[in-house]
Amino acid sequence: MNTSQVVYLVPSVAVLALVYAMIRAAWVQRQDPGDQRMQTIGTWIADGAMAFLKREYRSLTIFVVVVAIILAVSNASVSATQHTNGLIAVSFVLGAFCSALAGYIGMKTATAANTRTAAAARTGLNQALQVAFAGGSVMGLAVAGLALLGLGGLFAVYLRMYPTALEGGDATSLVLNILSGFSLGASSIALFSRVGGGIYTKAADVGADLVGKVEAGIPEDHPLNPATIADNVGDNVGDVAGMGADLFESYIGAIISSMILGATWFVGLEAAQAGTGMHAVYLPLAVAVIGVIASIIGFFFVRTQEGGDPQQGLNRGTFIAGLLMVLGTVAAIKMMIPAAGVRVSDLIAGEVTYSWWQIALAVASGLAAGIAVGLLTEYYTATEREPVGTIVESARTGAATTIIQGIAVGMNSTSLPILVICAAIVSAFECAGLYGIAMAALGMLSTIAIQLATDAYGPIADNAGGVAEMARMGRDIRARTDKLDAVGNTTAAIGKGFAIGSAALTALSLTAAFLTKMQGEVSINAADPYVLVGLLIGCMLPFRFSAMAMVAVGVAAQDMIQEVRRQFREIPELRPALDAAQRAESEERDPTDAENEIIRAADGKADYSHCVAIATSAALQKMIAPGVMAVTAPVVVGLISVNMLGGLLVGVTISGVCLAIFQANSGGAWDNAKKQIKDEGHAKWGDELEEMHKAAVTGDTVGDPFKDTSGPSINILIKLISVVAMIIAPLLYALHFGS
Amino acid sequence: MNTSQVVYLVPSVAVLALVYAMIRAAWVQRQDPGDQRMQTIGTWIADGAMAFLKREYRSLTIFVVVVAIILAVSNASVSATQHTNGLIAVSFVLGAFCSALAGYIGMKTATAANTRTAAAARTGLNQALQVAFAGGSVMGLAVAGLALLGLGGLFAVYLRMYPTALEGGDATSLVLNILSGFSLGASSIALFSRVGGGIYTKAADVGADLVGKVEAGIPEDHPLNPATIADNVGDNVGDVAGMGADLFESYIGAIISSMILGATWFVGLEAAQAGTGMHAVYLPLAVAVIGVIASIIGFFFVRTQEGGDPQQGLNRGTFIAGLLMVLGTVAAIKMMIPAAGVRVSDLIAGEVTYSWWQIALAVASGLAAGIAVGLLTEYYTATEREPVGTIVESARTGAATTIIQGIAVGMNSTSLPILVICAAIVSAFECAGLYGIAMAALGMLSTIAIQLATDAYGPIADNAGGVAEMARMGRDIRARTDKLDAVGNTTAAIGKGFAIGSAALTALSLTAAFLTKMQGEVSINAADPYVLVGLLIGCMLPFRFSAMAMVAVGVAAQDMIQEVRRQFREIPELRPALDAAQRAESEERDPTDAENEIIRAADGKADYSHCVAIATSAALQKMIAPGVMAVTAPVVVGLISVNMLGGLLVGVTISGVCLAIFQANSGGAWDNAKKQIKDEGHAKWGDELEEMHKAAVTGDTVGDPFKDTSGPSINILIKLISVVAMIIAPLLYALHFGS
Repeated sequence: MNTSQVVYLVPSVAVLALVYAMIRAAWVQRQDPGDQRMQTIGTWIADGAMAFLKREYRSLTIFVVVVAIILAVSNASVSATQHTNGLIAVSFVLGAFCSALAGYIGMKTATAANTRTAAAARTGLNQALQVAFAGGSVMGLAVAGLALLGLGGLFAVYLRMYPTALEGGDATSLVLNILSGFSLGASSIALFSRVGGGIYTKAADVGADLVGKVEAGIPEDHPLNPATIADNVGDNVGDVAGMGADLFESYIGAIISSMILGATWFVGLEAAQAGTGMHAVYLPLAVAVIGVIASIIGFFFVRTQEGGDPQQGLNRGTFIAGLLMVLGTVAAIKMMIPAAGVRVSDLIAGEVTYSWWQIALAVASGLAAGIAVGLLTEYYTATEREPVGTIVESARTGAATTIIQGIAVGMNSTSLPILVICAAIVSAFECAGLYGIAMAALGMLSTIAIQLATDAYGPIADNAGGVAEMARMGRDIRARTDKLDAVGNTTAAIGKGFAIGSAALTALSLTAAFLTKMQGEVSINAADPYVLVGLLIGCMLPFRFSAMAMVAVGVAAQDMIQEVRRQFREIPELRPALDAAQRAESEERDPTDAENEIIRAADGKADYSHCVAIATSAALQKMIAPGVMAVTAPVVVGLISVNMLGGLLVGVTISGVCLAIFQANSGGAWDNAKKQIKDEGHAKWGDELEEMHKAAVTGDTVGDPFKDTSGPSINILIKLISVVAMIIAPLLYALHFGS
Repeated sequence: MNTSQVVYLVPSVAVLALVYAMIRAAWVQRQDPGDQRMQTIGTWIADGAMAFLKREYRSLTIFVVVVAIILAVSNASVSATQHTNGLIAVSFVLGAFCSALAGYIGMKTATAANTRTAAAARTGLNQALQVAFAGGSVMGLAVAGLALLGLGGLFAVYLRMYPTALEGGDATSLVLNILSGFSLGASSIALFSRVGGGIYTKAADVGADLVGKVEAGIPEDHPLNPATIADNVGDNVGDVAGMGADLFESYIGAIISSMILGATWFVGLEAAQAGTGMHAVYLPLAVAVIGVIASIIGFFFVRTQEGGDPQQGLNRGTFIAGLLMVLGTVAAIKMMIPAAGVRVSDLIAGEVTYSWWQIALAVASGLAAGIAVGLLTEYYTATEREPVGTIVESARTGAATTIIQGIAVGMNSTSLPILVICAAIVSAFECAGLYGIAMAALGMLSTIAIQLATDAYGPIADNAGGVAEMARMGRDIRARTDKLDAVGNTTAAIGKGFAIGSAALTALSLTAAFLTKMQGEVSINAADPYVLVGLLIGCMLPFRFSAMAMVAVGVAAQDMIQEVRRQFREIPELRPALDAAQRAESEERDPTDAENEIIRAADGKADYSHCVAIATSAALQKMIAPGVMAVTAPVVVGLISVNMLGGLLVGVTISGVCLAIFQANSGGAWDNAKKQIKDEGHAKWGDELEEMHKAAVTGDTVGDPFKDTSGPSINILIKLISVVAMIIAPLLYALHFGS
């Protein structure tokens, strides 16, 4: 592979991924959408999801325009002569657009795939898996494809505008600086999608449960509950679009920061070395391209058979993609890096020569760490494993001990993932300096297409189960969707661990990029009290951010509760239907024909769209405060002291990753403890299990915002803060050290 | 004040404090111990507390002997020619002994003061306050006195052994190095008392409640419950001895680290400056002496009147002591520091001249920060304030929302205290470099005698209420002890905030001392991946430590539950008495005379001492694992890389302080939310308040280990790790950089 060819290869492979995404999306659309009732339910969910996206993107457009103007104006003071002011804003807008478009495509397909998965479950387990996974793979391919198309396309255009950038040096740094606007754009969407989506999904969930299940006494997911659709929409909004935007941001962040670190590797070395300088800049793009191709090949290995374990099918695809990625990366690096190795000047490691295999090892260590963190997450949150077992045991003595044990499991579960991440950092650094750490982050993320496909499969399978429930499908069909859904819980847990791990490494890479952009003027020696203060404040921010997200869920849920109560009160057809449904539920039997008559008469009378609108506006409104905090913190601290800002970046990352793992795993473990008690209950339900289940439900309710709102939002916080720092670095440099 | 006079002044003032402590203790003993029943209850509690101390000190003796031998042997390899090997072990043993003795004296008086406070409450509110506060002040004076006697005495002896140390330079460093063993001794006791005591108090509490209240249906604190005494003992063990050992450790750590930092200030400067060198070494001792005198004067201002607010009485004493301390410090510094200021060489600030007022300002900033953190803690945890109000509100929708809101309040409450600590760090550093930060820690702790007196007052008042309850005293007397107890809750909350703040600053000072002892060979630049990994692991440790402490409480409580159940089953007199008590309780009435007959027949049949023994051995056994982790982590990491160890120290401190504030304030807020609902309930108790109260009880049960076990234990973790690092610094230096 010739180095400059990579520049044009990137958009080509991106287009390939997008074409394949379209093929898969078309295939999903062609599948049987099920009977009339299933289609109606599907339409409600799809319309609700799109309504959220529309409102979100409307707010986003204003945000993006304002920030773009600020970027264009503020950067002018730093490098006016180079006319980069407008270009960085262009990168920013395009980054936001690509991430938003990927979210739109992914969600469109996911909301089509849910009913079709339920319909395919009538035929067989593998058929249903194929539809659900195809739906998820569209999200994965759209994210990888649009990320590479946008970033690669912009890079190619900017290289034509600044041809000297091809030789490395200042022009390359300039181009990469412009390009980093793309990263900020991706972060903006991630903030809205992940934080807003996280608030949405849990506000709808809590609102639907509290009024429907607790107050009105009707079953979960019942069509009479106006918030039911919002609840299902929430799964898509939070777990499909939110997760997609989160990983899109990490992916872009890892690529750009490794390019920036690669570009500065050769600064200060003799001109003779400069020729090899661009290898390190192109390499991240090459690894990304290989990851996409490996993922697409991996897709073909995802299958299962009737009675088989869908998890194994998903694992096979992921592991094959990982293996191919490593092999491809080894080959590419061997081609691009001279046999004698590259002599580089690393900010920390100093002047040193790295061989091709060392760089390959750095990439592989990131991938290995990603897999290890995922598997550890699974261990701590899976049913029938020891950690969840201790929570089940503690449920015997009530809700309080369930909560304490769940918190203990979550806090304890930080140890091994942190040690894995530490091992990856040290080995990547020993292999290839700071650049190695960024390449490790990229190695973790390079197979994003199949990783995200597996993640997005989860909520599709979950929705399919909901549709099957609402459409009153047969027991054997429900058994199939349940099986897919159970696997979805595991992939969701693994996906969360993976998202946290990659966010941590990406944030550290972005921090390293920030340091190099500050041209060595920033020292983050923790013995310097200003750095220490930055570390302390950074350490505190995820706590405050989590608190804000948790409170936001509570407040948004209140709005939802009011609305559902209003509809129950004001819509005349609902009252008799609710009474009939509640009567059947309280007597623990299916509704009689007469009752069903009354219930069906109220079909479609509940105003789902109004609940969707309420969840949407509440979510978007409540994410403003934490969002503003995340954006302004690095700016304010950076104006006070750049060393303090450096400390802030490190502090927020290390504390954020611990807090995110703790919250995600506590939440996941509580969820599965509840499930395990329920499963045991099928065999021998009694008073004790009833009480245990109640305690576990309390645990799960506490865990919901932990694992779906505040926990995942921390990923965004730590990346957004470091992206903002990286973007304002030239400005801060000019301000504190003269231009 | 002449500088070398300080050396002899320290033991003198220490003796003064101890004599005054003895006078106060004798006064407490002379008070009316109440009627026969009160005296019996008091004896049970006192015996239980002593039984715990005896067992604890027996285990400790083994631990201290083993560590002393290791210290004597291992340090031999570093400085064998200077015969310091044995001396550091001597310092260590004496440090452990002084802290243990302070705990013994404090607890002896506290367990005598509880019944006497209840008895004095028969006379009046001020009388009861005087007894309770006198009991607490013995603890405060014993800690300050024994700390200064041990440390000051050793320093005087070592100065005589190494007379050249009086001139500054290497001999001074050597003496201070030997002296720092005293700090490790104090830390060992703190580990056992705070972690073991924290496990004890909550295991007894949970065990007593679950079997007594829930299973047997008898009231809280009922004499028939064999775990009742263990529960009351726990308050003394955890909140008197544990808190005392915690602050003893901080106090010693702050004094020694500022002495070490002061000694290295003049290294590298011309000999002409060396004459002023010892000022900075003596100054911490002078500030400590002034703080003790100021505290003793403050004691005289603690009083209240019938119908008055005891809180105001306590505050008056504390504020007057603080004011006197600042005035005294200003005077002392003005005398000891030349008018032209001192020219110093700070590890971070470089060569710089500091005036006397700058050093005074550093001390004052620490005191101000301590007060501010305390007041903020009060705001976040007090009834009728907004944070607790939001938890009360969330209790309307059940236990899950109560837990979520409580966690949010705790996480949110980290922000302002962290910013206060940051402000103190920056201003202290700007005033007087790294030495300034250590002096700020000392400023916060210098009035420890009165601070700790106020802290220890809380559990005494709490116990007095318990004694009044068990001895069935009149309603107006109960109202007085309740009032004292309510104030005790507030002082406990403030004390916790204060302990966390001072632990954070002390740990940072100890870290700075570690860095200076490593003679500039350790760089904690967070851009160095090894430092980063140290930060990450450090950040994770408090999470794991908290999880271990929480799980330990659960396991220890199980042992207690088994024992109480066994006694109920096997002791023949208990069954009929329990039935009678339960019948009265379930019918919500006082027992009839006939029932009382049966109940009193069982008096003294419950085997309290066995429950005390079980709580004791469970607590001491369960603290081994977290203790071992705290001691070995810095050793293992230090052997791998000293830079990583530097990162570890910073990481564990910044994450530990956030996690400790979060847990302490969540726990405190839940406790008071329960209290507020109960208080409202007196006016208009109904089904809704009943449900809210249940939810709040769940919150409080979760909060119990948070605020009394895992939260406070983190203080010990962060200090112990940095003390161990400081102690092994010469060894690590020899190992990594040659001797």
